[in-house]
Amino acid sequence: MAMEELIRKANTLVEALPYIRAFFDKTVVIKYGGAAMENDALKASFATDVTLLRFIGLRPVIVHGGGPQIGQLLTRLGKKSEFVDGVRVTDDETMEVVEMVLGGQINAEIVSLVGAAGGQAIGLTGKDAGGFLRVKRLFGPAGRDLGLVGTPERVDVSLLRTLTKDGFIPVVAPVGVDAQGITYNVNADTAAGAIAEALAAEKLILLTDVEGVLDDAKQLIHQMTEAEVRRAIADGTVKGGMIPKLECAVHAMERGVTAAHIIDGRVPHALLLEIFTDGGVGTKLVHAKA
Amino acid sequence: MAMEELIRKANTLVEALPYIRAFFDKTVVIKYGGAAMENDALKASFATDVTLLRFIGLRPVIVHGGGPQIGQLLTRLGKKSEFVDGVRVTDDETMEVVEMVLGGQINAEIVSLVGAAGGQAIGLTGKDAGGFLRVKRLFGPAGRDLGLVGTPERVDVSLLRTLTKDGFIPVVAPVGVDAQGITYNVNADTAAGAIAEALAAEKLILLTDVEGVLDDAKQLIHQMTEAEVRRAIADGTVKGGMIPKLECAVHAMERGVTAAHIIDGRVPHALLLEIFTDGGVGTKLVHAKA
Amino acid sequence: MAMEELIRKANTLVEALPYIRAFFDKTVVIKYGGAAMENDALKASFATDVTLLRFIGLRPVIVHGGGPQIGQLLTRLGKKSEFVDGVRVTDDETMEVVEMVLGGQINAEIVSLVGAAGGQAIGLTGKDAGGFLRVKRLFGPAGRDLGLVGTPERVDVSLLRTLTKDGFIPVVAPVGVDAQGITYNVNADTAAGAIAEALAAEKLILLTDVEGVLDDAKQLIHQMTEAEVRRAIADGTVKGGMIPKLECAVHAMERGVTAAHIIDGRVPHALLLEIFTDGGVGTKLVHAKA
Amino acid sequence: MAMEELIRKANTLVEALPYIRAFFDKTVVIKYGGAAMENDALKASFATDVTLLRFIGLRPVIVHGGGPQIGQLLTRLGKKSEFVDGVRVTDDETMEVVEMVLGGQINAEIVSLVGAAGGQAIGLTGKDAGGFLRVKRLFGPAGRDLGLVGTPERVDVSLLRTLTKDGFIPVVAPVGVDAQGITYNVNADTAAGAIAEALAAEKLILLTDVEGVLDDAKQLIHQMTEAEVRRAIADGTVKGGMIPKLECAVHAMERGVTAAHIIDGRVPHALLLEIFTDGGVGTKLVHAKA
Amino acid sequence: MAMEELIRKANTLVEALPYIRAFFDKTVVIKYGGAAMENDALKASFATDVTLLRFIGLRPVIVHGGGPQIGQLLTRLGKKSEFVDGVRVTDDETMEVVEMVLGGQINAEIVSLVGAAGGQAIGLTGKDAGGFLRVKRLFGPAGRDLGLVGTPERVDVSLLRTLTKDGFIPVVAPVGVDAQGITYNVNADTAAGAIAEALAAEKLILLTDVEGVLDDAKQLIHQMTEAEVRRAIADGTVKGGMIPKLECAVHAMERGVTAAHIIDGRVPHALLLEIFTDGGVGTKLVHAKA
Amino acid sequence: MAMEELIRKANTLVEALPYIRAFFDKTVVIKYGGAAMENDALKASFATDVTLLRFIGLRPVIVHGGGPQIGQLLTRLGKKSEFVDGVRVTDDETMEVVEMVLGGQINAEIVSLVGAAGGQAIGLTGKDAGGFLRVKRLFGPAGRDLGLVGTPERVDVSLLRTLTKDGFIPVVAPVGVDAQGITYNVNADTAAGAIAEALAAEKLILLTDVEGVLDDAKQLIHQMTEAEVRRAIADGTVKGGMIPKLECAVHAMERGVTAAHIIDGRVPHALLLEIFTDGGVGTKLVHAKA
Repeated sequence: MAMEELIRKANTLVEALPYIRAFFDKTVVIKYGGAAMENDALKASFATDVTLLRFIGLRPVIVHGGGPQIGQLLTRLGKKSEFVDGVRVTDDETMEVVEMVLGGQINAEIVSLVGAAGGQAIGLTGKDAGGFLRVKRLFGPAGRDLGLVGTPERVDVSLLRTLTKDGFIPVVAPVGVDAQGITYNVNADTAAGAIAEALAAEKLILLTDVEGVLDDAKQLIHQMTEAEVRRAIADGTVKGGMIPKLECAVHAMERGVTAAHIIDGRVPHALLLEIFTDGGVGTKLVHAKA
Repeated sequence: MAMEELIRKANTLVEALPYIRAFFDKTVVIKYGGAAMENDALKASFATDVTLLRFIGLRPVIVHGGGPQIGQLLTRLGKKSEFVDGVRVTDDETMEVVEMVLGGQINAEIVSLVGAAGGQAIGLTGKDAGGFLRVKRLFGPAGRDLGLVGTPERVDVSLLRTLTKDGFIPVVAPVGVDAQGITYNVNADTAAGAIAEALAAEKLILLTDVEGVLDDAKQLIHQMTEAEVRRAIADGTVKGGMIPKLECAVHAMERGVTAAHIIDGRVPHALLLEIFTDGGVGTKLVHAKA
Repeated sequence: MAMEELIRKANTLVEALPYIRAFFDKTVVIKYGGAAMENDALKASFATDVTLLRFIGLRPVIVHGGGPQIGQLLTRLGKKSEFVDGVRVTDDETMEVVEMVLGGQINAEIVSLVGAAGGQAIGLTGKDAGGFLRVKRLFGPAGRDLGLVGTPERVDVSLLRTLTKDGFIPVVAPVGVDAQGITYNVNADTAAGAIAEALAAEKLILLTDVEGVLDDAKQLIHQMTEAEVRRAIADGTVKGGMIPKLECAVHAMERGVTAAHIIDGRVPHALLLEIFTDGGVGTKLVHAKA
Repeated sequence: MAMEELIRKANTLVEALPYIRAFFDKTVVIKYGGAAMENDALKASFATDVTLLRFIGLRPVIVHGGGPQIGQLLTRLGKKSEFVDGVRVTDDETMEVVEMVLGGQINAEIVSLVGAAGGQAIGLTGKDAGGFLRVKRLFGPAGRDLGLVGTPERVDVSLLRTLTKDGFIPVVAPVGVDAQGITYNVNADTAAGAIAEALAAEKLILLTDVEGVLDDAKQLIHQMTEAEVRRAIADGTVKGGMIPKLECAVHAMERGVTAAHIIDGRVPHALLLEIFTDGGVGTKLVHAKA
Repeated sequence: MAMEELIRKANTLVEALPYIRAFFDKTVVIKYGGAAMENDALKASFATDVTLLRFIGLRPVIVHGGGPQIGQLLTRLGKKSEFVDGVRVTDDETMEVVEMVLGGQINAEIVSLVGAAGGQAIGLTGKDAGGFLRVKRLFGPAGRDLGLVGTPERVDVSLLRTLTKDGFIPVVAPVGVDAQGITYNVNADTAAGAIAEALAAEKLILLTDVEGVLDDAKQLIHQMTEAEVRRAIADGTVKGGMIPKLECAVHAMERGVTAAHIIDGRVPHALLLEIFTDGGVGTKLVHAKA
Repeated sequence: MAMEELIRKANTLVEALPYIRAFFDKTVVIKYGGAAMENDALKASFATDVTLLRFIGLRPVIVHGGGPQIGQLLTRLGKKSEFVDGVRVTDDETMEVVEMVLGGQINAEIVSLVGAAGGQAIGLTGKDAGGFLRVKRLFGPAGRDLGLVGTPERVDVSLLRTLTKDGFIPVVAPVGVDAQGITYNVNADTAAGAIAEALAAEKLILLTDVEGVLDDAKQLIHQMTEAEVRRAIADGTVKGGMIPKLECAVHAMERGVTAAHIIDGRVPHALLLEIFTDGGVGTKLVHAKA
């Protein structure tokens, strides 16, 4: 390797130092999904990033979705789903498939990927540890019944803290239980937000399949305060699927999370870039300066 | 409640004291399967027993099977299985189903059952923690290819120890990984034996759908030494499916497990009875007195 | 043993589970005395109960009396005692006998009984650890001098916490010291109450030689709130020796003890029955629901 | 105070420094008895010394006798004792008195004295903690029955280590239990030796009512090796009650105690002087240089 | 040694016991300087005292000056200093000499002296541990520039606590850093006061070359309250160099230090005498009784 | 920043992952000196590298030299030095200057540099902690007297372990003490080797002002086994100052250090490059494969 090349590498490591110091021993909750969970190269890149975060002293927690994979198995089983406002109405049989796919397939695959990168992940669902993700039933517009769809009520973080303190990387499938022990399907973004909030995380990072939040001129907004987010929602600058993501992020920030990031999961190593460079590859939500 | 009845209850608790003292802080690995995993009352009874064990000071670890449930989903998906000597030949697609059923359905159900009984279970597969159940490929008779069927090579018990020390109850689906990170289906009895051995467990308990080991007169043998087991296998006293179970148990005992039990999972609270009464409800294998 | 009998036993253990879970790691202070301290079978039953409590995760602390035995030795030594309102006027020579009997005879016997049941008890008096039971001199009606009779002023619980945390069972003789280091005789109920209060115990249990608190129709009252106790004292429902016991119990509850029990020490395993069954064998005092 | 006097005081403290450093965190087992346990000034001096040892970093453990006090109570109760070779034949009734006096009177008094000096003592007998001083029955010459007289067989030091590590000073009455849980009277020197041995103590110090070991010319021998002790016993230089004391001391040294001291308990602060000055006030037994 | 002499020695040790108990595990910050740092016998006496304090359970922290030695090296290097109100104007070159003398010469010598006395000292400057003594630039009267002279702004005590907890004796050279990382010379009394305050020390002891605070009749004042100190400054009873010392001491006491001592470092073992005798060898400042 | 550039950065971080995992929690002893200690940019680069190592989980320990700076101060003070075989003959006055420069100037500067990079360094000399670097006097050829020049005899690593475990970075000036407490000048390479050996370090890294070890054709040798080093010395391939460095490195490796590196301190971030890239920037000495 030429000396020049070596020095460029060294400089990159050195540039990361301020971030490494700043985030030492801090918890980062990552919602993993979309393209980053489908493309093989992006999967490996994600697992490597998470493992690297753990070895340089952070405490990553992964929360994943799995809508498309659930759909595929339902289709193979000849089971049709109804959707209300984008939410899958979940009957008992569907819930069984949801659990198998999230807890038995996707979760296991992520654990394997992290293992291949040299990390030690532990697959979890919200049912573990006596139901650490406690939910209540969610109703659709006009009180419509959505079946076994839940929304987070309380997160018992003792297991997550124990695992991250010992260097393990929790991989959480967004399945929760209510007070009666009934199992529910939970939106992964919402679950990640609730977990980040309960852990008073340094960062909540949502991987998406878009560049980030765009302004009216379709340019990426690099940074927004909570007030700016609310205004952008109110005036229609942001639309569609971005709205619930931003609401979830702002909700978590109002309850103790330091910063939230909406990043482009289609970029290799998006996670590392967002955490360890100034520019980043998405939109960072920050608290307004006091 | 009449005073007599009360006193009888007290006496039962008191009779358990010597066992409680003897097994305080000891690890018990339980292979869970068969009728005890199918009948709703037996399921609840099992979950209660395990939770009780944990609260009176033992460290239970559950390893479960799931052959019938795997078969059901394969059938629903129109996928046929070939069997060689009772072992399901496991191709990639089958392995995916195995993982979903064991890791995403059965595992989750056991975790829920224990939660309903007031315990804190954690669902695991051998892929967790960087692959804590390391296996190698198993071949059939005459080197026949069985596909993704593995046999335990090494168990990293650090995660299991951490969890049981903190009062959590690990529930392990018998899925392992080889050195290349490939996922394999593992026989649940064998996995339980390997885990018991690695943990130097006090007891390895195999729940079955028979009374225990029977002698020539079809009478239950309450206790056997390793030598007696070998003789009974050699002279044909025991036959069929009991042979691999006994071999698995003896194998674990030769590598540090104190005692092994083949018990009748069809009896409610079989687990408690076997541990806390002298008679027990099955066959206990013990080391011969030196 | 017939299977039916086995199952009945299992059910008894299982019934205890909710109590075991509820009282896990909780402290229970037991005033031991009366018939339960005189009859050999009841002694063994008590020691077994206490040992069982410890092994299923509670933290028992025993405080014992010893009036009759003190009387016997005084008689043998030809020493007469005067009583004021049921309190033995205690001169220096009497105090010496009190200490020998409580600290050297009864205490030692209880430690032995617990040892025989498989527990590890540690005999203590309030003089240990630099005087962990600090008292002040108590005066009789109209300021009458009672000699070396003290009432608890402050309990230093660090030794008790250390011992119970390590699985030891403290057995405390009710002997205290004042600020000048002078030794005093203390009423055992009062000492137990003060210790329960200082430990913020889950339960204060007073073993007596009666069924419990009886109503006007001589029927056992199973449960009372603090207000009901006060009313029963005020309107004369309860009389005599039960009054100071109830006052002691209510006093402790007002200072942080969760529940108090007046139970019938003449019933074998009264302790277990009161803790692990719903009916119990005595009167339970509880805080009124808010 | 004149400056000269102050400086003399400072020098004394400074002279103690090498000893304080050398014995930091070391265990010292002290057999307490004789004049030091009878004279009020000597009692207070002893308690102060022990407390000082603890505060400057040593771990003192006291083992006490009580023959004269036992005799007094027996006399008051009209009970006669037979002696065989200086050992009191101990029947059940005598044993009860022994326990009351050692465990309830003397033990409590020492605990109080240490408390008055500002230390935190804990009174113990060998019955505590499930019988930490395990003994077997001792027989007299020609197998003569001595009743409940025992000799140490095994010492479980976990309780003593826990207490001394937390800064408590154990005060042990020499009462032991055999495997059947029967209580025995034990010679205090022997008990101290066995405890010192089990703790691998830095020092075993026996307080006596003589100057120490004297040579033929009645001069104090300041230091002896084990071989010199054996020779002095063999050639008759030492006689009578000194012989068992020296044998006890040498026995302990052969099993891991670093040094043993036979000191004159009639000298105020004999303990401090022996530990913190070169001359000392008795005879020090040391291992011969290798 | 005659027995009388021995007993006198024992009494001296015993007299120290109440002080040893009272100051057990307490932190004492000592400003070391003046004659005690120049005379060889006094140096050894100081090092012994500090080591003794550590072994009997206190946590000493030394802060030293070094003006004369700095002056000597500057002279040898031909560098002249200007003084403003007794403060050396410190340019870059002077600061370099200050660091070499304080951090490389005096600090090292004290560490050696303590080592020779058997203690384990660790030489530090305020630059260690990322700048544990944070200062800001100090200006002279009328805003006159004093160069690199700083005054304490914040003390990060984590390193000091870690070291003293492990039995090490920190020796701090009064060199600090500002927010920009620039190194400053700090007055040793002030640095000691700031460190004592940050540690909430039991005592701040300033070694001086005078007897202590004198009254109008030139008699030593043994004890003063903060109010009396302020009055003595106001009415001119104390003058000159004693004023800033008293102000420094009172400042620390107002911020949590229990007592401050101005003692005569010319007396051998002044430190021990002041701490372990009632009279002491200087002036003790105490909080007024509430 | 262009996306390409971002991705290149991410890749560099990712490439470092295997090294970060391999060296997690491992100790690295670095001899710092030469150009890297003179040039301002290289100084900052070194401090950054060391800080980065600490934050990504390694435990760096720095040992520095200072010959040129010592020479400068001696010159300014008009003091001449004699050299024997390249070793400065060190009289008392010279030793004083050595200590001031190493312990008060260079050490302090390195501590500041690391602090500026965000690390927490602690300046030490071998005199700290009761003399953790124990040396004996070294003699020149033919027994020539070199004055106060010592060679390491024993290293007490407890302080170094405590500090590195708590995240502090020790900076050690190569000054030692002998059994009599006399201070000696020690060669920095030798001191680093002895410290690496005592810590059983993963790596000993010597920063030099050359490229590394060159072969006969003046080409850098990237890797050598111990046997190859000995051969290269024997056959004259390596010459001059490189010989003692290699001997020091091999000596440490024979006593438990895993690998040693001779690297080019003139290259910015040489430390990072050597540890985190395969090529490295110097010569790596490794144990021959078994």
